[in-house]
Amino acid sequence: MNTAILLYDKFTTLDAIGPYEVLSRLRGSTVTFVAERRGPVTADTGMLSMIAEASISELPHPDLVLVPGGPGQGGQMADGPVHEWLRAADATSTWTASVCTGSLILAAAGLLAGRRATSHWLALQPLADYGVQAVSERVVIDGKYITAAGVSAGIDLALWLAGQIGGEERAKVIQLSMEYDPQPPFDSGHMSKASAKTKAVATALMARDIAKPAQLKAGTQLLWNSALAAARGKVARR
Amino acid sequence: MNTAILLYDKFTTLDAIGPYEVLSRLRGSTVTFVAERRGPVTADTGMLSMIAEASISELPHPDLVLVPGGPGQGGQMADGPVHEWLRAADATSTWTASVCTGSLILAAAGLLAGRRATSHWLALQPLADYGVQAVSERVVIDGKYITAAGVSAGIDLALWLAGQIGGEERAKVIQLSMEYDPQPPFDSGHMSKASAKTKAVATALMARDIAKPAQLKAGTQLLWNSALAAARGKVARR
Repeated sequence: MNTAILLYDKFTTLDAIGPYEVLSRLRGSTVTFVAERRGPVTADTGMLSMIAEASISELPHPDLVLVPGGPGQGGQMADGPVHEWLRAADATSTWTASVCTGSLILAAAGLLAGRRATSHWLALQPLADYGVQAVSERVVIDGKYITAAGVSAGIDLALWLAGQIGGEERAKVIQLSMEYDPQPPFDSGHMSKASAKTKAVATALMARDIAKPAQLKAGTQLLWNSALAAARGKVARR
Repeated sequence: MNTAILLYDKFTTLDAIGPYEVLSRLRGSTVTFVAERRGPVTADTGMLSMIAEASISELPHPDLVLVPGGPGQGGQMADGPVHEWLRAADATSTWTASVCTGSLILAAAGLLAGRRATSHWLALQPLADYGVQAVSERVVIDGKYITAAGVSAGIDLALWLAGQIGGEERAKVIQLSMEYDPQPPFDSGHMSKASAKTKAVATALMARDIAKPAQLKAGTQLLWNSALAAARGKVARR
């Protein structure tokens, strides 16, 4: 079982690490962090670098390909080597997966058209704009295509996948080994639960992060539009 | 607000990344990954390296010091530069925190004696052996000392801290930005919920990982004893 997790400049780390922490605990599982080029890749905060152990060309046919999201997603929307790799990997993969705005990259590579999929709440409209049946669910399964909502949802996605790959009993062992018995101190993790103020501040914050001029490529422009829609309450619940 | 997260050989990545992902989203917050020496540090699986951006000597007085756990914890139990750094950092810190078996390192450095604290379920007895009031709770607060249960519990710890540092409203914004609305597909994340079989397999698995001969230092020997006790059901609930 070979898993490739794609890294790129300004990825969100927990999007990648949540699934890694689960999937690496499967028997006979190897998780490889890949990027266009080997070497350090800097996360969205600029405070952290992880090392891509292989280039995408070195791992053309993983069993599971997983794309995390993050503000840098906007830089991964144009066709090119990453999209070519994603399409080739998907052609032979057992599972193709994403966390957060990683689904926009899969969609831009042409892999999600007509399928049910999800993304960060701020990115559901842009996802729909790619011809995807975008839904606000924690983990969406459409055949071999598995997409998760924002950032932390990758843990839930990976546990479900672990159950499929290694069996439910093994997945439960992994859950216990990680003591994944979440007890958030607040109940503000979903647009249906957060206050109007919290939603407005989160939307403004993320839209600001996303809409830096240097990143105003196609994908981020869509996100910016979505942020405005979210601020107006239009994509609060789908 | 300067946070230092300690890295060391064979740390568990989610222990460090969960809190980082939350705390880095606080206004005016800087999170620095530190290690005895700058440069790449390899995680417990051997599948991932993160870069320590600073040596511990370069960041002597963080506002928040956080120690993750992992199988490599056993190599961090002896007195030396890391313990000296922890004691000096703790002398001026606003918060001293740990995730998972990171609390064993804090205890070995002499910082938790007599305090209430927690750890991974497999490590509660070794923690108690250091004169700590070890309790099985998700997040334990004793003055400025904040400890979390295993691996994924660091997210809950950091959200609580974010509320203390940046205010509850800001913490809720962070929770929504991360879409931290967990929906585990199984309910096996705590010793009180897992089946007898799941507990036995998880205990055997982790004890095996922990008890590699090269790591049989004081801390891991204690963990091994604890694993045997857990397998016999003696530390299933405290």
